[in-house]
Amino acid sequence: MIKIILDCFGGDHSPEANVEGGLRALERFPELHLILTGDEAAIKRCLSGREFDQKRLEIVHAPEVIGCDEKPTDAIRLKKESSMMKGLIMLRDRDDIAGMVSTGSTGALVTGAMVRIGRLKGVIRPAFCPLLPTMNGGIVGICDSGANVTVDAAMLRQFAIMASLYLDNVYGIQSPRVALLNVGKEAEKGDEIRKEAYGLLSGTEGLNFVGNMESRDLLSGKYDLVVCDGFSGNVLTKATEGTALELLKKLKKDINSRLLYKLGALLMLKMFKEEKEFMNYQNYGGSVLLGSSKVIVKGHGSSKAVAVEKCIEQAFKMERSSLGAKIEAQIEKYEHYED
Amino acid sequence: MIKIILDCFGGDHSPEANVEGGLRALERFPELHLILTGDEAAIKRCLSGREFDQKRLEIVHAPEVIGCDEKPTDAIRLKKESSMMKGLIMLRDRDDIAGMVSTGSTGALVTGAMVRIGRLKGVIRPAFCPLLPTMNGGIVGICDSGANVTVDAAMLRQFAIMASLYLDNVYGIQSPRVALLNVGKEAEKGDEIRKEAYGLLSGTEGLNFVGNMESRDLLSGKYDLVVCDGFSGNVLTKATEGTALELLKKLKKDINSRLLYKLGALLMLKMFKEEKEFMNYQNYGGSVLLGSSKVIVKGHGSSKAVAVEKCIEQAFKMERSSLGAKIEAQIEKYEHYED
Repeated sequence: MIKIILDCFGGDHSPEANVEGGLRALERFPELHLILTGDEAAIKRCLSGREFDQKRLEIVHAPEVIGCDEKPTDAIRLKKESSMMKGLIMLRDRDDIAGMVSTGSTGALVTGAMVRIGRLKGVIRPAFCPLLPTMNGGIVGICDSGANVTVDAAMLRQFAIMASLYLDNVYGIQSPRVALLNVGKEAEKGDEIRKEAYGLLSGTEGLNFVGNMESRDLLSGKYDLVVCDGFSGNVLTKATEGTALELLKKLKKDINSRLLYKLGALLMLKMFKEEKEFMNYQNYGGSVLLGSSKVIVKGHGSSKAVAVEKCIEQAFKMERSSLGAKIEAQIEKYEHYED
Repeated sequence: MIKIILDCFGGDHSPEANVEGGLRALERFPELHLILTGDEAAIKRCLSGREFDQKRLEIVHAPEVIGCDEKPTDAIRLKKESSMMKGLIMLRDRDDIAGMVSTGSTGALVTGAMVRIGRLKGVIRPAFCPLLPTMNGGIVGICDSGANVTVDAAMLRQFAIMASLYLDNVYGIQSPRVALLNVGKEAEKGDEIRKEAYGLLSGTEGLNFVGNMESRDLLSGKYDLVVCDGFSGNVLTKATEGTALELLKKLKKDINSRLLYKLGALLMLKMFKEEKEFMNYQNYGGSVLLGSSKVIVKGHGSSKAVAVEKCIEQAFKMERSSLGAKIEAQIEKYEHYED
């Protein structure tokens, strides 16, 4: 049995979407056990009338909620009875629990995970790795996308090692093609950190490093993973999501501006629905915090049930594949190589 | 008369597109005088049979071309007879020439401009400022988008000052809304440079600083200008352009996959053409190098005639509005404030 904590509060559609996502995941994975944290009465209301395996679902009452605008360090210190912090403390204290899924404040989650949970052996800093869909139907990981606004070359190499193992073990992408986010393709591009990282990545046996990538090629399908500092990774992820959403919105508005276009769009209804689903980040799960000593998955604040279900699936598969132990072993191997 | 050098080589559609763009600009601006650099015979072939005001067009023969993959420092040193370097040297030596437009290697142009042309008085480092269309029909500037991979807070403030003046003087955007690119909206987000810059920008009288911006809001129309380091600015610009292009490509492919969709698209032909024009960066001119002591405009390598024409228009209007002198005056005023 794999035990995962599901923080049921802090998202835009909490607790309904979180609980519903949890129930769906329970149905799909007979080896999954969920511990729901949050206001017990509210969670019970969401569960009432639903059929599920009661032995695989517990509720732990946590009356407080951390808001998105709260300062992470304050939230950790002052909101010990929140659904997120109570979950993190349980995760720290109980060896039988593998991980936690939350749709709450990113800052509080990453700071809380660092302070309460800690890192895998050898990991310099944990890093977020969200996924985006590529134009040829695949996915691409971006690591780090915001946990570390500044990095050094050694951290970038660890991001590559950790996220490569993640893509292989959870998504079956063997020998993922790893690129370094840069301002040009040539090896000598970028600042000193990028130049050093290029050398480190090239010289790391077992990594499938394919060179620098410019941000315009993210969705091309030529890469499985791009490594970057958390600042530019955050800019990259949000710019890509934001542009796609803004364009869809514009298309919709323009279609509605003329009857002729509406008629045309009617013929293309199925296609537009598919495009919308394709761009819908709800379908691609959450951002996993690689390098944390226990599994942490951060779902989008706007996660609906389908996104929560995917986040739980990610956490479940990370634990089932013993990803943490594999990351520790691989990092030990590389650090050893350097001696 | 405003004299501008037009580098006719180094772009994907050179020299035809460059010469054609030059002729169109000459027709539109009676006060414009162009000096075309590049292989004289090739330029003359493009001009043959065309009517234009011969008094306002010169050709300066430059037989060499700088390739996109050449190392900038080598190109500057070794290719003095290239269309770009000959242009830059002329620009340096002749007081009667105001600026230069090039669609050639970005690296060679920015390094060449730094070495041969130098900075306006008080400017720490010149910065690129390209423009993108926003969803409400406006434009947004991104400064810096690649000239400086590392920056400090004082540079970020100068980018805000220079680009605000540019948007006001060339595009008539009064008191442009300036945002700082960051990983979140709150004032305390980002690294030390961002935190310091937030304070500097807030405290600069005359700047319309509206706070931090996340990359997903770039096209929202809420901002006229976003300031950033050249690394993340480059990531932002190319991710936005790249996502738009990839999505249009996908839409086209999907439409062609079924007859029904093709029929629907036929009804929407005009709309799709407008969307394509809207996303076409050729329509938004080039990336101006703000802070250089003479006007420098870098057109996209793939510039067609319409883009070259826009670049010349930008250079012409920068000079006509005495932008350089205004930038020097404004920076002197702010540096003075600090004493």
